[in-house]
Amino acid sequence: MNGEFEIIRRLTRAVPSAGSRVIVGIGDDAAVLRGTQGSLVATVDALVEGVHFDLRYCMPSDIGHRALAVNLSDVAAMGATPRHALVSIAVPTAKANSFVKGFYRGLSPLARRYGIDIVGGNLSRSPNGIFVDVMVLGETTRAVLRTGARVGDLVGVVGPLGHAALGLRALRRLGRKKALAAYGPFCRAQLRPTPQVEAGAQLSGWATSLIDVSDGLSSELAHLARASRVQIEIDPTLIPTMPRFERAAAELGMDPRALQLAGGEDYALLFTVREKNWAPLRRRLGSAAVIGRVCEGRPGVWCSEGGRRRRLSARAFDHFRSP
Amino acid sequence: MNGEFEIIRRLTRAVPSAGSRVIVGIGDDAAVLRGTQGSLVATVDALVEGVHFDLRYCMPSDIGHRALAVNLSDVAAMGATPRHALVSIAVPTAKANSFVKGFYRGLSPLARRYGIDIVGGNLSRSPNGIFVDVMVLGETTRAVLRTGARVGDLVGVVGPLGHAALGLRALRRLGRKKALAAYGPFCRAQLRPTPQVEAGAQLSGWATSLIDVSDGLSSELAHLARASRVQIEIDPTLIPTMPRFERAAAELGMDPRALQLAGGEDYALLFTVREKNWAPLRRRLGSAAVIGRVCEGRPGVWCSEGGRRRRLSARAFDHFRSP
Repeated sequence: MNGEFEIIRRLTRAVPSAGSRVIVGIGDDAAVLRGTQGSLVATVDALVEGVHFDLRYCMPSDIGHRALAVNLSDVAAMGATPRHALVSIAVPTAKANSFVKGFYRGLSPLARRYGIDIVGGNLSRSPNGIFVDVMVLGETTRAVLRTGARVGDLVGVVGPLGHAALGLRALRRLGRKKALAAYGPFCRAQLRPTPQVEAGAQLSGWATSLIDVSDGLSSELAHLARASRVQIEIDPTLIPTMPRFERAAAELGMDPRALQLAGGEDYALLFTVREKNWAPLRRRLGSAAVIGRVCEGRPGVWCSEGGRRRRLSARAFDHFRSP
Repeated sequence: MNGEFEIIRRLTRAVPSAGSRVIVGIGDDAAVLRGTQGSLVATVDALVEGVHFDLRYCMPSDIGHRALAVNLSDVAAMGATPRHALVSIAVPTAKANSFVKGFYRGLSPLARRYGIDIVGGNLSRSPNGIFVDVMVLGETTRAVLRTGARVGDLVGVVGPLGHAALGLRALRRLGRKKALAAYGPFCRAQLRPTPQVEAGAQLSGWATSLIDVSDGLSSELAHLARASRVQIEIDPTLIPTMPRFERAAAELGMDPRALQLAGGEDYALLFTVREKNWAPLRRRLGSAAVIGRVCEGRPGVWCSEGGRRRRLSARAFDHFRSP
C-alpha cells in the first residue's frame, strides 16, 4: 500500500525531520539514515489489543504514547540515545481513520520531546483487533549490558516503582473517568509512562549493568543476577515510595510493597554501579536511589529486611498469562 | 516477557551471528550493532492473517520466508544490502509453539542465505489471528531513490512479473496440494518469493531510480513517474514472459498481460538507467530486460504497442480492499 504514506506523512509531519540524520524519511521503499560512528541500538515491541491494552480505558493517544515509550525505555536501558522510530499498525477498516489519528496524537509529542524522527510507517487492515509494533533505533558510544554487575557494586533504581500497576488496578476497578479523577498520577503512569531517556544516556559510562523495569522489579533483578552471574541483595525498605502512593494502595486494597516488587510496566531503570561512582552519578541523575548491593555467593536475588534474609521470588509480569 | 528470548534464541541460533557487526544480539533490552560509515536503511512490513496470508494454503514456514523476503525486497529497492532483522509475532496461545517453530523454519534459511542476523525478537499473545512484523536494517554507500528518473533513461525490470498473482489464483482455486502439483513455480513465487537482493546491490551506482514491484507493475510505474515527475512509456510486449506462464494463465482463465501489469507481490525490481549504462549494467544483472523509456511530457505512464498509445491505469494491489 502506498496511499498509506500520505496519511502517515501527514500525521507525522509535526515531528521535525530536523535530525540531519534523516536522508530519506517515509515515502520511499525504506528510510535512509546517516550512519553512526558509535554503536547502533535496535529494538522492537508490540502492543496488542486485549493483551497489552483495553480500549475500555485506553484512548488511541495513550496507545500511541505507550507504544513509543516502551521502546524508548529499551533503548535507554542500553545506555543509548533514541533517534528514529518505525511504526506498524494493523487496525480494522472501520476504526482505521480515528485510531491512527489518535495514535499519532499521542505518539508525536513524545517523539518531538526526545527528537525522534518517525522514518517508517506501515498501515494494514486487521480482521480482528488492533496490533501495533514500534521499532526504535538509537546510538551510543558505550552500551551498558545486563552482564556487567560485579561483587561490591551498588544496585540502584531511577524512576517510580509500582505506580503503573496501581494505576492499572484503579482503571480496571473504577473505569477511566473515575480512576483518573481519584488516582490521576498513577493512571497516567500506566497509560502514558515516562521513559527514562535522559537517565539512560547519563548511565552510560557509569553503570556497570542496566535493565529497564518492564516486567516488575523482582523479575528484572532476577534477570540481572542471572545475566551477570552474581548474587544481589536488596532491602525493600529502601525502594522509594511516597505517602500518596501508600494511601492509594491501601484504598484500593493493594500491598504497596508487592506492587513495587511485582507490578509491571513502570519503565524505571535498574542498574549497578561501582560504589565510588555512586555519588557523582547520583548528582547527574537527580532522583535515583540505592536499594541493595551485589554480594558474594551463588547467583540469585535475596531480600534483607530488619535482620531477616529470604529469597526473592521472581514473579514476572507475563503477557501470555495476563491480563 | 523474557522467557520468549530462549525460544527465539533457540530458533534463530542456526543463523550465524557471524557478522562481526552484531555486538549484542537477542537477550538484552535491545540489540547493539556496529555503526556504519555509509547510510543506514530501515524498513518495516507486516503480514496479517486473513489479509496477507491464508492458513488454508500457507504454511507457517511460508509466512516466515515471506515476512523476511518482502523486507529484503524493500532494502534491495534502495540499492542497499540487508544486514539485520527484528521480528515481532503475535499469535494465539494454542498455536504459538507450532507456528513460531514453523515460521523460523522458513525465515532462518533465507536469513542465512543472505547473511542476515536476527537481532531482535518479540513474541506476544494474540486474542485473534496471527500478526507478524519484520523490520530489516541494511546499509549502502549510495541509496537509489524513486526520484531520480530523467528524460532519456531506459526503464528496466529484473525478476519475474505476474508469477505470484498466477500462483495465488491457483492456490485459491485448487488448494495448496493440487496447485503446487500443477503450478509449482508460480505457487512458490507467491508463497516463497525470491527477493532481488543481489540485483539491488548491483543497481546501486547504476540505476537513476529504483522501486520494488510489490503492488503490481502498473502501480509501481505510476509511483516512479510521480516521484520523479516524469513521463514513462512502456511497451508491454517487452515484459519478459515464458511459454509455461502463458499456458498456465490460459488454463486458469487469466490474461497473462493483466497478471503482469496488475498482479501484486512479485518483488521484482523496477529501475531506470542512463542509456549508455545499460549494457554494462545488464551484464552485471544477468536477466534484466528493458520495457520502456522515460520521455518528454507531463508526468504519467503510457503504454505503446504496435503504434497505438494509451494511458496505463495504475491498479494498485491494495490490502485494505483485498483479498
